[in-house]
Amino acid sequence: MRVLVLGGDGYLGWPTALDLSAKGDEVGVVDNFARRHYDHELGTDSLVPIAQLHRRLAVWQQVAGRHIACFVGDLTDAGFVHETLSAFRPDAIVHFAEQRSAPYSMIDRAHAVYTQVNNVVGTLNLLYAMADVCPTAHLVKLGTMGEYGTPNIDIEEGFIEITHKGRTDRLPYPKQPGSFYHLSKVHDSHNIMFACKTWGIRATDLNQGVVYGQATPQTDLHPDLATRYDYDGVFGTVLNRFIVQAVIGHPLTVYGKGGQTRGMLDIRDTLQCVGLALANPAAEGEYRVFNQFTEILSVEDLARRVAEVSPRPVEVRYLTDPRVEQEDHYYNASHTSLLELGLQPHLLSDELIASLMELVERHKDRVDPAAIWPTVDWRQTRSRVGRHLPEW
Amino acid sequence: MRVLVLGGDGYLGWPTALDLSAKGDEVGVVDNFARRHYDHELGTDSLVPIAQLHRRLAVWQQVAGRHIACFVGDLTDAGFVHETLSAFRPDAIVHFAEQRSAPYSMIDRAHAVYTQVNNVVGTLNLLYAMADVCPTAHLVKLGTMGEYGTPNIDIEEGFIEITHKGRTDRLPYPKQPGSFYHLSKVHDSHNIMFACKTWGIRATDLNQGVVYGQATPQTDLHPDLATRYDYDGVFGTVLNRFIVQAVIGHPLTVYGKGGQTRGMLDIRDTLQCVGLALANPAAEGEYRVFNQFTEILSVEDLARRVAEVSPRPVEVRYLTDPRVEQEDHYYNASHTSLLELGLQPHLLSDELIASLMELVERHKDRVDPAAIWPTVDWRQTRSRVGRHLPEW
Repeated sequence: MRVLVLGGDGYLGWPTALDLSAKGDEVGVVDNFARRHYDHELGTDSLVPIAQLHRRLAVWQQVAGRHIACFVGDLTDAGFVHETLSAFRPDAIVHFAEQRSAPYSMIDRAHAVYTQVNNVVGTLNLLYAMADVCPTAHLVKLGTMGEYGTPNIDIEEGFIEITHKGRTDRLPYPKQPGSFYHLSKVHDSHNIMFACKTWGIRATDLNQGVVYGQATPQTDLHPDLATRYDYDGVFGTVLNRFIVQAVIGHPLTVYGKGGQTRGMLDIRDTLQCVGLALANPAAEGEYRVFNQFTEILSVEDLARRVAEVSPRPVEVRYLTDPRVEQEDHYYNASHTSLLELGLQPHLLSDELIASLMELVERHKDRVDPAAIWPTVDWRQTRSRVGRHLPEW
Repeated sequence: MRVLVLGGDGYLGWPTALDLSAKGDEVGVVDNFARRHYDHELGTDSLVPIAQLHRRLAVWQQVAGRHIACFVGDLTDAGFVHETLSAFRPDAIVHFAEQRSAPYSMIDRAHAVYTQVNNVVGTLNLLYAMADVCPTAHLVKLGTMGEYGTPNIDIEEGFIEITHKGRTDRLPYPKQPGSFYHLSKVHDSHNIMFACKTWGIRATDLNQGVVYGQATPQTDLHPDLATRYDYDGVFGTVLNRFIVQAVIGHPLTVYGKGGQTRGMLDIRDTLQCVGLALANPAAEGEYRVFNQFTEILSVEDLARRVAEVSPRPVEVRYLTDPRVEQEDHYYNASHTSLLELGLQPHLLSDELIASLMELVERHKDRVDPAAIWPTVDWRQTRSRVGRHLPEW
């Protein structure tokens, strides 16, 4: 199968490209290096050093004897998208190429507009190019569980059967996204559903939970094949941040009460899920949604788990939640579709937490404690981002 | 009350501005003349001649002795939006300033992207500027009934109470928009709902049906106060088109089976509804949705009504539907909120149809039959728009 991985230089795009290439797919990666740009902008960096994309590809060729094609450009450039699809002729496209940080989208107006235009226009250009160049290709698009928000009823996979005033219909699940980033994904979902219906495009929307972990069988083969480990206040996710804080002896920073509960998954399960979606494509004109996570955990659960595994005592600090979100809420989300396709979950284990702690120990000299503090405040229209050391 | 009318040079924005000014509000209009630009692009024109905005404002000053402030600029220019709100300091903002044609958004990729970026970024800039400059002002935003699509259950006003697996919540009503234009309105709705929750903005989203009619008490005062009458295949709405076709002796063009059923309203009721929303503002942080229409009619109903009123025999031609939509479907939508606030509907009457026929008779020499044909095909990614005479 010929698979084009959009955002193939990123945290998940890169290991996905390697995984597919290792399995024998003909793989191409597309990237505009936006993720590296955000680091330059914010003064942050991946904990684990990341080689240049061309270096990564050359090392993969040496180590695995497999070629991955490389297209450098921006999805908001419609000509580039059309040319790339025409040149590569993909059977499937895995689309990770979006600005993916909620805090980044909430920095100020310019970042909100950038996030929505970048994500929505990139995906619109992709849908048009697919309809023109490869109308039977399968789009596997990364969405987010955050599209649903935290409703007081069970979350289903994309659609819900509603009985109302004596009539019944299966309708798109109501969305209550909690940042301009999450909103951009909701906009994408609606646009893609429409393109499937109107042009017969096949699409799988993977509403992914929060991913943790950094190692996959392929990235472990050589240091220059490593993927990112983000722990900063803008791009870092909560488990990564807690582990860095535990290792450097800082208090774990819990936002609000810590009852915020989310679907989570191991990076290796992201690769499994994408592989399963590709192996079982959507039908012509079908827009389907899979909820992509393996277990439901609260922020407090994560803090407790990290504290239990940490060899040294861990303190927890409760900060005022910089986000506008429910800090204590009902949460139950369906996630059976991928299990039915054969997903074998790696649940969060003490061994995994310990291995991440070892990883952080190894790169401890690269930790910048000033980058961890949450500097983006949802309630402000303009946050001063940047490195900030709390006074403790 | 100080009211800023965005898109105040357009079909509904202009009569709304006059109506509010006549009632004694301090009114400002904002426009970038996008609607006039579309006419230049497509080679179309309003059936009724439209004076320049500055001329309109001068005539209003003469006729009514009332000043309306004028701001020329684009909502996608954040600096302009911020400066305009700072200068005018509105108590309320009525937002009509969006690309409003479904066919226009479906011409090709560029028009789809333009529509979504123009509408979504304009509204984002407005939300940020409101939060910064006039956080207690009331936003009255024009949405569309088309956001809901045609579900097989009753449509409620923005939200629906869902009982699912033994639990109940009031959630945003699921959206199934049928064009990139309608999608842009859904994106706006989600963005506005989030801004209300996060920054405490007050907003009323008026999900409006298809508007017909052209005369209001103020626009009738002078020919240079007239508002548009669009009948072309891109911007014209169905009743306007049927009336033009009846008057010039062309067959009425029904798309598909004609069972497409929509909420509709008289232009005078648009003014009433906006006035009622302004007089009864949303609470701080409240995002509320009113379904703004007065009766539900199908395309066939409209064709029949026009044929009945027409003094000469009227032929009906059924064209292949250029849109992807259900041509025969269940449709029942709630619209009690505005009635409860006091709306007195002008239902579609034979007198109104006859008065529109008279209007078209008066401007018959300006009718361009070649502009009426539907040239935008939903199933194509690229339609050749332009004037086209069918062979009959």
